[in-house]
This record gives sequence, C-alpha cells and structure tokens, in this order.
Amino acid sequence: MQMESLHQDETIVALATAYGVGAVGMVRLSGKGSIAIANKVFRGPDLSAVQSHTVHYGHIHNKDKVIDEVMVTVFKAPRTYTREDIVEIGCHGSTFIQDQLIRVLIDQGARLATQGEFTLRAFLNGRIDLSQAEAVNDLIHSENEMSRDIALGQMKGGFKDQISALRQQLIKFASLVELELDFSEEDVEFADRSQLEDLILSTVKVLTGLIQSFEFGNVVRNGVPTAIVGRPNAGKSTLLNALLNEERAIVSQIEGTTRDTIEETMTLNGITFRFIDTAGIRQGEDEIEVIGIEKTFEKIREAKLVVYLFDAAIMDSEELQKDIDDLAIDQQHLIIVANKTDKEGAENWAKDFDAYNTIGISAKEKAQIEDLQKQLVDLVLSEQIDTSTTIITNSRHYQALSEAKHALEDVLNAMHAGLTGDLLAIDIRKSLHALGNITGEISTDDLLDSIFRDFCIGK
Amino acid sequence: MQMESLHQDETIVALATAYGVGAVGMVRLSGKGSIAIANKVFRGPDLSAVQSHTVHYGHIHNKDKVIDEVMVTVFKAPRTYTREDIVEIGCHGSTFIQDQLIRVLIDQGARLATQGEFTLRAFLNGRIDLSQAEAVNDLIHSENEMSRDIALGQMKGGFKDQISALRQQLIKFASLVELELDFSEEDVEFADRSQLEDLILSTVKVLTGLIQSFEFGNVVRNGVPTAIVGRPNAGKSTLLNALLNEERAIVSQIEGTTRDTIEETMTLNGITFRFIDTAGIRQGEDEIEVIGIEKTFEKIREAKLVVYLFDAAIMDSEELQKDIDDLAIDQQHLIIVANKTDKEGAENWAKDFDAYNTIGISAKEKAQIEDLQKQLVDLVLSEQIDTSTTIITNSRHYQALSEAKHALEDVLNAMHAGLTGDLLAIDIRKSLHALGNITGEISTDDLLDSIFRDFCIGK
Repeated sequence: MQMESLHQDETIVALATAYGVGAVGMVRLSGKGSIAIANKVFRGPDLSAVQSHTVHYGHIHNKDKVIDEVMVTVFKAPRTYTREDIVEIGCHGSTFIQDQLIRVLIDQGARLATQGEFTLRAFLNGRIDLSQAEAVNDLIHSENEMSRDIALGQMKGGFKDQISALRQQLIKFASLVELELDFSEEDVEFADRSQLEDLILSTVKVLTGLIQSFEFGNVVRNGVPTAIVGRPNAGKSTLLNALLNEERAIVSQIEGTTRDTIEETMTLNGITFRFIDTAGIRQGEDEIEVIGIEKTFEKIREAKLVVYLFDAAIMDSEELQKDIDDLAIDQQHLIIVANKTDKEGAENWAKDFDAYNTIGISAKEKAQIEDLQKQLVDLVLSEQIDTSTTIITNSRHYQALSEAKHALEDVLNAMHAGLTGDLLAIDIRKSLHALGNITGEISTDDLLDSIFRDFCIGK
Repeated sequence: MQMESLHQDETIVALATAYGVGAVGMVRLSGKGSIAIANKVFRGPDLSAVQSHTVHYGHIHNKDKVIDEVMVTVFKAPRTYTREDIVEIGCHGSTFIQDQLIRVLIDQGARLATQGEFTLRAFLNGRIDLSQAEAVNDLIHSENEMSRDIALGQMKGGFKDQISALRQQLIKFASLVELELDFSEEDVEFADRSQLEDLILSTVKVLTGLIQSFEFGNVVRNGVPTAIVGRPNAGKSTLLNALLNEERAIVSQIEGTTRDTIEETMTLNGITFRFIDTAGIRQGEDEIEVIGIEKTFEKIREAKLVVYLFDAAIMDSEELQKDIDDLAIDQQHLIIVANKTDKEGAENWAKDFDAYNTIGISAKEKAQIEDLQKQLVDLVLSEQIDTSTTIITNSRHYQALSEAKHALEDVLNAMHAGLTGDLLAIDIRKSLHALGNITGEISTDDLLDSIFRDFCIGK
C-alpha cells in the first residue's frame, strides 16, 4: 500500500470473493464514484435512482459487448462497510469474467484497490478502530471456532474499550504531571502520587493479563503443535487415523475444491491441533541404540503438547520410565498413552505413573479415543488464565502491550526513586503512545501500511 | 445426483462462491423453506416481512453462539434464479465460517445441494431450457472472450429457438405421415412428399452447419493446442516468453491467489492458445540423428496449429525444406517462422516458401511478434464457417445433432427408395427425439444426471 491509497476521493474496485471458479463471484466498488461508474456499464435500472440495500438484475456492457448477466446491489453511504457508497456486482464465477469486469470498471475510472483498502477506509472514515480492522482479517482467516469467536469479540470493540479506558485515565495523570512542570519552581504536585501508583499498578495488572493471553491466543490462531511419539509399532499411525477419523469439513468434500496441502489437523472444542510427524524414538528391542533421535527430539521441542504412545502389552514400566526420562518433557505438556489395551497382558501399565497424565486406549478398536481427545483439550484450556477475558492473538498488539507495560514499570521505578515529574512524564507518554497504537488513536502511515498489507485485496 | 434431488419440496443449501479464503463468501438457500430456515438462525430484521431483492444486516447464530456477522439478501419467488424463494447469506470469507454456516442451515432443515441443483431447479421450474442450463455452466468455466460470448448467446435461448422451430415443422410432417398410416388401405398422402423433402433438406443443411461449428466451438472452449517446434537454439523459449509477455490477468496478480498449474496459454482476439511444450526436433548440426523425435511428433499430432521456428541466420533452404517435410503438417495448420532476423545473413530465407504461411521475427528484440499473433488468429478464424451463426461447444449437442441428421438422411433415402410411410415415420420420430434432447423438451433422469453432474455445487 502506497500513500496514494489514502486518496479517498478515488473509487476503488476489487474481487471480493475467493479467486477461482465458483457459481458466483462478486466484484466490489467503494467511493464517491461507485454508483456513477457502475451506471456507465450497467444496463438495467438506473442505479442512482434505486434505494440503498436493494438488488437489481441487468447486464454489464463494454461498449456494445455484453460482459455478463449480473445482479447489482447498491449500498448508499453512510450505512455501508466503508461508510462510502458501495456497489457489489454479483457475476458468474468465471475467473475470466471477474477479470474483465474489473478491467471495464477500471476503464470507467475506478482504481484497483490495494490490500485491505476497503477496511482501511472503514478505519479512516471512523467506522471501526484499528484493532477492529485487524479482527476483520483474523475473522477471514479463522480456521476454528475459538479463533472465530476471539475475532468476532474483538470486532465488536471490547478490546478497544478496555484499552481506551486505561488510556484516558493515564492521559489525565500525564496532563497533571506535565502541568507540574510548568510550575516546577513552586514544587507542587497536582498528580496525586499514590493515586497514580494505584492506577499504574492496576494498569500493569491488566496489561500483564493481556500479554499472558497472547501465548494462548497464538495457539488458538495457529493451532496447537502436537507431537505423537513412541517406539516403532506403538501404533502412532493408527492413533492418528482414529483421531482424524471424523474430522472432515463439509465444504472440503465438495468435488473440485482443492487445498494446497492436506495437513493433519484436528479441531476439538474449537481448538485446532496440528500434528507433527515424528519417527519412532527407538528402534525395536534388539537395537537399543537410538536412531534419528536428534531429529525427533528437535520436533518434540517444537511441540506444545507431546503424546507418548506405547504398546501396553509388551512394555514394562522400567522401559517406559526410561523413554519418559529421555523425553524430558514437562509433566504439564505430556500425555502418556497406553495403546493396545485390548491385548492380553496390557492391564498393569498405569500403576507407576500417577504423576503424569495417563490414559489407556485401543487405537485399533477406537476405544477411549474420546477420553484422549478430552485430555488434549483440557491441557490446552488449563494454560489459559481466564476464558472470559480478552485474548490477544495479534503480535502487533502483543508488542505494543509489552512496550506499554515496560514504560509503566519505568514510571513506577522512577517514582520509587523519587525522580522528578519531567522524567515520569516521558515514560507515561511512551506507554500512552504504545496503547494508542493498538486502537489507532495514534497511527502513522508506516503502521497502517504494515497492518493492511496482510489483508487480501477486496477486503 | 440421485433421484431424490428432484424432490423440489426440499430446501437446498450450498456455498455459491469459489472455495477458499476471500474477503466475502456467499452461502445460498433455495426452496420453499429458505426464508423460514434463514429466519431461525438470523438475528436482524424478520426476513419473512422484508421486500424481495433487499439486503439486511445481522448475525447468524447457532443457539446462543454467534457464527458470523452477515448481510442477507432475500429473493422471493418467482422472480429468482430457480423460481423458488432464495436467500443469499454474505459472510466473511473464511472457509471455516462458510462451512459452519452450511452446517447450521442443514441443522435447521436445509439439505446440501447436489451439483448443478440450483440450475436444475431453474430448468424443472421452466425458467430455462436444457441448452440454456448447460450454457450457465459453460459461462462459469469460460476462460476467454469468445467462449463467454457463445455461452451468453446460448443462455439467451437463440439456440433453443432455432432447434424448436425446426422441430415444430418436422412434428407437423410426422403427424401427417402417421395419419396416412390410419388410412393405409386408401393409399392417400396427407404429407406432401416434395414439401417434406424440401424441409428435410433445409433442416439437414442447418444441422450440418451446427455440426461443423462444433470443431471450432470446441477449440474456442478448450483453447487451440499450438505446438512451437524447431531445432535446439532456434529460440523457442524466447519466442514463448515474447508471446506471453503482456498476457497476465489482473485478478491473478493479486497476492495470495493460486492456480493449480500455471499453463502457458495466451488469449488473442478472444481465442485462447494453449502452448504444447516440445523438445527440439533435431539435435545440433553434428548429430543428424533425431533424438526423441517420436515423442515430439506425438505432441505435434495433438496440436491444431504448429509454429515451426528456425534460426534464419544459420539455416539454408535445403535444411529448412527437410525439416518441413519431416513435420508432414498440412500447410493450413503450419506457420513457418524465421527467427533472429536481426542477425546478419538472415535476409533470404523466405524465397522458396511461398506456399506456406511464413513470417520473419526477432523473438529477442520482440520484433514482428504482433504479426505472428495476427497469423495465429487468422488461421483459427479461417476455419470457422460463419461467426454470426450459432456455434456448438457441447459434445452432447454435437451427438444429438449428428443423430438427428443421420435419421433425416435415412428419411430421404427411404423416400427416394419409395418406402412406405410407416418407415418414414420411425426415422422422423428418431430425429425429433434427438432434437428434443437438446432443449430438454424430451428428457430423462439419466440425461439430467449426466448434464448436471458436471456443474459445481452451488450453481
């Protein structure tokens, strides 16, 4: 996005639906000229005379040539996504037609939108703040229930309100502290130091909660990296198949749809688990020597959760303990799974492992798979501080919150050290700046650029 | 598509936009229950109370959980695509959200649509005929201007009218011939034989034109397979790059869009050329032995056009003639291109090749590339009988037209042989049946099945 994208007098156009062949596609115009530009190529009712939020049948023409039979929806400002006039043209879902439609609209004076420019305009026109704009992008890319819920919550502006309220209180103190500077020779304190300390302490507490939620939020957004490890023939593949068994989306069953890669992921209670493929951690009984162990252990370190799987019918507790010690995983992130519990001699595996999360299953018979799924979910949820609070999923927010927190801690230290108001003021301003960045109350072109270039064109 | 898809009392649902992540996605309902089902999950205005062709803001809920913030458009029967009530739900373009939306609507009583079921309903409800329904699918898959134009023309029903008119006249004669059978003992002729012969002759002429248009139509739809052949270092890759140079669609420039394979195609004057990759047809001067020639010649046989490229600065006319003889391509389908005309000694190549389509270019300097493009287009267009007539692109239509033509030729032969009316009647009926298949005036479940299973779900 270059600076000219901020030229809001221009009318922008882009494909709003996913690129590819579908039953229908949608091309969207936004800006003062939307209706006039659409009218020039549309043969049907006069779009400048129709009511807002109505749909009209007609044809898009390029000179005397019909480009497509379309349904055109007119949205008149300000009750629109961008707060500008918007025209949506529903066409046949041929990529060729979509492309031609955009070309014809450009010929008539529209400009191809830059990434995220529709949402940028919604922000610049004051309909949403920056964190809400970012939530729109998160929503579009949400792949599971929890990330969807977080994005929808953030779009409603709950996050903004919380940050803004803290910021307003800090601004009040900052002004008072700065006022003191004007009267520095008189040694007055307009800003009550103990009230300021209370405010900063409670603000730091809120920020800490938000910052801590980031790790969880990140996991929610990207999925929980989960390694299934074990000796060869422990049944890792069978377990993976059993876990993935019922996890297929309706939409992806539609013939002709494609995904770039079919990753092994599973969504449970709205949490996505991404399975990391590992080789067996030991060769069979005969060769105690550990093969390829370094590579497997690298992958284990990437994982957030490790499922250690073993054949309950043949492993004794000594061997088991040895493997677990080798793994050297925090008990909180390890689930020990005894497989093949349907086989003889598989009864007594659990007795020595009370300290761990343990469970017996039969991957082959699909027995107790649900119990394992529940344990996976519980382990993730136990990491979370409080599900009802805001959860940070955006690394930009994480960084801004961390900066604000550090600045406020500096204020506290300065106060305890008895430093003068002018030094306090600098750090308070720093924290205000960081917080203002989140909602866009303070924004620069660079910031806007870096946010919106992650968007798809058309949003 | 199974028979139950003909249960038109059911309400169907499907994703209408291309599968994938986009700014927006659209899920579509059609059927008596569309509005009631949408109303059950939509929080916003009462959709049963709103006007047709209007758009409404609200949220889709699953019990107490928000699935997405949406724009819902209501289309009330009969002024809709299917002639049934249609509800379109514009949601955020996350595949997860689209999937969930469909699930929620299924939970409320909708059924996932089969392929082409929306268009099938438009046909069954009498809004369009079969050839128009097929044109919808052609339009969605159109990849260039000419195939789009043909599909749009066919959607308007021009093709149907032409076939129907012929069919009506034939029906009249068939009835008269069949009436004669009731009076067979009296040896009367209700059907004037010379009028019947004239009608059949003119019908056969129309059918022949349509049948001949199929090869052209097929090329239009699928692109003209074009081989660029030549000895190594003739400059094939440079030429291909020069040809493709300015051929990039706007939509496909959008970051994040993907195509399964980037095929080397170029569209000129609305005609798509698909380039077939071939190895050089000879190894260099030293090894006269032809390497891999069989494979290259196989590819040449698949091509409709062959561009033979040579280095004008080093080839003499004897070598050139040898290569051309080896190719053994019909002059009509071969373009001889002298490359590197900017080099010294490249002047006199053309003198012995008047009989062929020849042209001199410099691929490196991009000189005369436009002349070559014009020759490619002219060669394709010279194949076409008449651009203003209907062009057949559908192999089902081709087959039905061929059957009708053969049956009518049998009628003519039977008349010339003085055969009796009952034999004529059988062949006339045969041709009527074939023609009726095209427009759907005669249709079977099998026929419908085979047509609509090529559609995407959602159309």
